[in-house]
Amino acid sequence: MRIDNRKVDELRSVKVVRRFTKTSAGSVLISAGDTVVLCTASIATELPGWIKPEEGKGWITAEYNMLPGSTPTRKKRDRDGHLDGRSAEIQRLIGRSLRATLDRVALGPRLITLDCDVLQADGGTRTLSITGAMIALIDALATIPDLASFPLTDSVSAVSVGLIDSAPMLDLCYQEDVRAEVDMNVAMTGSGKFIEVQGTGEHALFDRSQLNELLNLAEKGCRELTQIQKDALGADWPF
Amino acid sequence: MRIDNRKVDELRSVKVVRRFTKTSAGSVLISAGDTVVLCTASIATELPGWIKPEEGKGWITAEYNMLPGSTPTRKKRDRDGHLDGRSAEIQRLIGRSLRATLDRVALGPRLITLDCDVLQADGGTRTLSITGAMIALIDALATIPDLASFPLTDSVSAVSVGLIDSAPMLDLCYQEDVRAEVDMNVAMTGSGKFIEVQGTGEHALFDRSQLNELLNLAEKGCRELTQIQKDALGADWPF
Amino acid sequence: MRIDNRKVDELRSVKVVRRFTKTSAGSVLISAGDTVVLCTASIATELPGWIKPEEGKGWITAEYNMLPGSTPTRKKRDRDGHLDGRSAEIQRLIGRSLRATLDRVALGPRLITLDCDVLQADGGTRTLSITGAMIALIDALATIPDLASFPLTDSVSAVSVGLIDSAPMLDLCYQEDVRAEVDMNVAMTGSGKFIEVQGTGEHALFDRSQLNELLNLAEKGCRELTQIQKDALGADWPF
Amino acid sequence: MRIDNRKVDELRSVKVVRRFTKTSAGSVLISAGDTVVLCTASIATELPGWIKPEEGKGWITAEYNMLPGSTPTRKKRDRDGHLDGRSAEIQRLIGRSLRATLDRVALGPRLITLDCDVLQADGGTRTLSITGAMIALIDALATIPDLASFPLTDSVSAVSVGLIDSAPMLDLCYQEDVRAEVDMNVAMTGSGKFIEVQGTGEHALFDRSQLNELLNLAEKGCRELTQIQKDALGADWPF
Amino acid sequence: MRIDNRKVDELRSVKVVRRFTKTSAGSVLISAGDTVVLCTASIATELPGWIKPEEGKGWITAEYNMLPGSTPTRKKRDRDGHLDGRSAEIQRLIGRSLRATLDRVALGPRLITLDCDVLQADGGTRTLSITGAMIALIDALATIPDLASFPLTDSVSAVSVGLIDSAPMLDLCYQEDVRAEVDMNVAMTGSGKFIEVQGTGEHALFDRSQLNELLNLAEKGCRELTQIQKDALGADWPF
Amino acid sequence: MRIDNRKVDELRSVKVVRRFTKTSAGSVLISAGDTVVLCTASIATELPGWIKPEEGKGWITAEYNMLPGSTPTRKKRDRDGHLDGRSAEIQRLIGRSLRATLDRVALGPRLITLDCDVLQADGGTRTLSITGAMIALIDALATIPDLASFPLTDSVSAVSVGLIDSAPMLDLCYQEDVRAEVDMNVAMTGSGKFIEVQGTGEHALFDRSQLNELLNLAEKGCRELTQIQKDALGADWPF
Repeated sequence: MRIDNRKVDELRSVKVVRRFTKTSAGSVLISAGDTVVLCTASIATELPGWIKPEEGKGWITAEYNMLPGSTPTRKKRDRDGHLDGRSAEIQRLIGRSLRATLDRVALGPRLITLDCDVLQADGGTRTLSITGAMIALIDALATIPDLASFPLTDSVSAVSVGLIDSAPMLDLCYQEDVRAEVDMNVAMTGSGKFIEVQGTGEHALFDRSQLNELLNLAEKGCRELTQIQKDALGADWPF
Repeated sequence: MRIDNRKVDELRSVKVVRRFTKTSAGSVLISAGDTVVLCTASIATELPGWIKPEEGKGWITAEYNMLPGSTPTRKKRDRDGHLDGRSAEIQRLIGRSLRATLDRVALGPRLITLDCDVLQADGGTRTLSITGAMIALIDALATIPDLASFPLTDSVSAVSVGLIDSAPMLDLCYQEDVRAEVDMNVAMTGSGKFIEVQGTGEHALFDRSQLNELLNLAEKGCRELTQIQKDALGADWPF
Repeated sequence: MRIDNRKVDELRSVKVVRRFTKTSAGSVLISAGDTVVLCTASIATELPGWIKPEEGKGWITAEYNMLPGSTPTRKKRDRDGHLDGRSAEIQRLIGRSLRATLDRVALGPRLITLDCDVLQADGGTRTLSITGAMIALIDALATIPDLASFPLTDSVSAVSVGLIDSAPMLDLCYQEDVRAEVDMNVAMTGSGKFIEVQGTGEHALFDRSQLNELLNLAEKGCRELTQIQKDALGADWPF
Repeated sequence: MRIDNRKVDELRSVKVVRRFTKTSAGSVLISAGDTVVLCTASIATELPGWIKPEEGKGWITAEYNMLPGSTPTRKKRDRDGHLDGRSAEIQRLIGRSLRATLDRVALGPRLITLDCDVLQADGGTRTLSITGAMIALIDALATIPDLASFPLTDSVSAVSVGLIDSAPMLDLCYQEDVRAEVDMNVAMTGSGKFIEVQGTGEHALFDRSQLNELLNLAEKGCRELTQIQKDALGADWPF
Repeated sequence: MRIDNRKVDELRSVKVVRRFTKTSAGSVLISAGDTVVLCTASIATELPGWIKPEEGKGWITAEYNMLPGSTPTRKKRDRDGHLDGRSAEIQRLIGRSLRATLDRVALGPRLITLDCDVLQADGGTRTLSITGAMIALIDALATIPDLASFPLTDSVSAVSVGLIDSAPMLDLCYQEDVRAEVDMNVAMTGSGKFIEVQGTGEHALFDRSQLNELLNLAEKGCRELTQIQKDALGADWPF
Repeated sequence: MRIDNRKVDELRSVKVVRRFTKTSAGSVLISAGDTVVLCTASIATELPGWIKPEEGKGWITAEYNMLPGSTPTRKKRDRDGHLDGRSAEIQRLIGRSLRATLDRVALGPRLITLDCDVLQADGGTRTLSITGAMIALIDALATIPDLASFPLTDSVSAVSVGLIDSAPMLDLCYQEDVRAEVDMNVAMTGSGKFIEVQGTGEHALFDRSQLNELLNLAEKGCRELTQIQKDALGADWPF
């Protein structure tokens, strides 16, 4: 039995509030259990310096941040100009995952920034950021008036899995995460292809069959999260 | 008639959600019209370096931050280590206002940090931060088990007033704020004493009688905001 | 009786040396009692990025800095790239005050930077910076050969007032400043209009009648400082 | 046929120079084809702040850096204090991999820092850093006089694999790396357990069977790299 | 004939104002022609981290800074945390020169910081800083009540020399400095020993005989500057 | 007799490996005794901002860095954005020395950056960097296809000399360097002209005759280093 009475292959309860704020083109408050992330999508026509506007291609980038109040012990802000290594790594993962199904030509010369600000952290913030940001991204794309075709070829969701006392479990909460021997984050498309597989032996090593069990769980979790995204978007689901 | 059909001496509608998150000792989501601020209060026993623990006195400090998605044009994060002058000035104002009724000995050797993160900005973010943070602070103080006496002698609220086309108005929204000739932020105690009066002629100068009219409006606004705080806290109102 | 034998409504003795250095278009060494500030005004034709040169409008900005030797305990230089909050707040106040009577079109596409470097600090450095910088600014404007009209519509001066043992006093020196219950900085035009009113209850709150007494004192102080500016500029007084 | 005439499951030629410099406890110049990394291991008795010396446990950390001359277009140094996200991510990976087989109690209260400075970059710098740093680490551990038991339970090596034109290939050089649809870095122990699996769909997605083929290749590569480490250490191989 | 009608071996006119400010233990305003430097000496009992207080030895350090108004084109402040290379080099030179005749045991466990802030720059700011700081240092040492013996064994002064159109000249002003083929800064003791010789071929190389001519000029200049220091200190001259 | 059995006027044994890496236009691994420096030369067509491309002139700059493993106690990387004063000073010296014989018009609008990364430090790193970088620079210049004339008019080498127990010695190793009373770095052209003379009394003062003896030694050392450069370049020696 798990800490919060879930089965080993059970996701935490997910809630999605679209248009939580109205200043951004997309704005989603997403929670999974006690993890809460605000994902906002902003569209700009100023491209990063390394993209030549004449190519006509766009870009999607992400920034990840934990608010000071998101953890029981207050988390110091990154105000000395040194983005900590963990945050840098996470926001690179979010950005790559959201670009995996992007047609840059269809997007046109636009930069979309997905800001994932964690309001409350209870494990799985990076994967919930990807799942929520995808909804905000779809909402934001819908505000662009004159797109020839929809710039995403598929949806993306992500989930964490791990080995705890040698048992594979889906969607770890914080108390499970700190105990996990192996921790794996997996991002997948709605149609079931892999985008990212990041498995780390934190306190133990793992063999090929354990890896396979973890991947099975992750596939199940991502399938369910895709359905949750679909339900949240309803008639606005573009695929 | 004002942009949003309010009377010149009318506050925007204020909503307060206490315990919006549960990781912090106090957590208040407060909105006034379209301005939304998350105020969290964290209690630590590590004091700032300049306070000697043997004095037995505490401190309250504040940090102010606008999330990237809080403005129609995405606001760049302060990731280069240079807190912009405006934010520095605002968080100093918030901290000073919240300390105005503090009995540092009654608080004991504790540091309470009020984080005011603006989720949506439509004018008056600094004064709404003070009004909301006061509620989060009262909630946080209630979690300290063994206080000999309550460490605040009075509540604090704040509001902005301004001159628009020479007419004094209460609680400016963003569109009014950019047009205001004179902009004034006032923080007051629940019993009607002044803590801060910051009036600035942005596009015009002002004389003594205009200053008096603005102060009258601010007194009315703070009186009403005190009542809103009282209603939100209900039986937990400590004064 | 005050520490330095002044009356409660008496300014400290002010000395002005114009053209203290000759590398800048304007250069004023101003002292009030033991507070000494060097104010230099530099004219550049490169505008800040947010001003479009085709608008033909200029700008005035200010920087404030205390030299390490200006305080009895050496003040560390801001060499880690983090301008401290107090300095940021002060230089924003100085800049706003000096722009209050500026006709940006008459100035033309020029940037004037007022550098206020405190050589010795004994209270009132921010208000003395404003009073001295106004003289340096007038001297600097006189060096621009082909101005259609003078770009300032009025002079500006500033002074501090405060409540000490509940008594209102004018132009606080450092020893008074640290004891003051309420501290207020006021910037006014030569013709007696308000530009900035910044009152802060440091160790006490204040009511409306105390506020009025402080404003009376500040008006008297600014009137006298305007006369001192006029005397220093003599035939060069432009108003 | 591959760019450099290798078979799809063939490693580049690896050369190891132990004790390349003598100022560090361990110093290995390792090259794989045209990728060259200098790995030095330094032992200190000052622990990171978060480790309490009384626990008696040690730590291993890593820093990764590319020299300016390591790439055909000169790589700017990180002199503005912002370690780029990619380097931060890589050095966290190196550190985690080297700690995977560490017995912190056997190491005792020591900090070993592995510096991996890339002298020439032709793909696979992060995995070659791990493989080379493991040799430098073993050499450094041998200099500690009074260890009760050897602090590593197994060796660690790492290799990159990828899909190019849908074909899985081992140990990508730079020209292959930029063309790869999927890029995967795998770290394993000498006895064939996984430590890290990081697979990323850069220009394409991948399915379960492709993932399996990539893992097969990586297992073969790591097996061969373990033998190379063993040959380089000769009689000093501790396992 | 030189630009300012001096002979090739003639110093600019030097003026010294002791006790220009009174917040520091030593405070000297020194000028040579149009170069003006404020040198303040502050005494602290907190030693730099690398000095063990139990050794009983002191230290002297220096900081060099040009005020924004010190040059015809306003000099940007070092507010991004990157002290420019030239200033770093200069303040290291000043510190070394002032320590050259220091008896660290006689000084006792004290840190004296010499701040050299250039108010107006017309060439030779680093050497004038040394010459002026030595006077401020002597004044500061005189304020320490209980020194067993005077902590300096000799005075120090410094001057610049250079080759212009192949002719050696003493004490270059800015217009000469930019034209100089070779530029040399020399610091010497009052009794005529060398502390620093820094000669640089800026636009030309130099041979041994030219080097000798420059050293002759520098010796003459330092001899005269020593006399100026002696005259300024009068009865307070300690040697 | 010296620590390493050299005569007082004897250089350490110098080894030069040209083309140590192949990613840079010039790449030299140079060692003198136990000091080892990797000097790479990179050619770019983007000029520094202060050079107008239409002038048709080039520039040479240098960066100096010690790898963490280059010293017995690990040297912390400059990752907080504050290049330490010593490194800043050294890289300015290297750059100036390499530009001393440069014909900027012959180079054309190119920027050549010489990166001097110290792999092992045993004294004399700055002078060995100059000597090695000159060889890398000559190799890099040879790769530019269409130069009208060779852009250097002469070679440059550098060496350190010092007074130890009052005896002048050539090419100090680290143990000698820390004991030296006077330390002098001298850069000269192949034909025997001075570029830089930087003498510092670290623990003692020096007189004119001691200065002359040190210069004699430095001339001998630079003459021999020029021959070593000539031998290393063989038929590629351009002078």
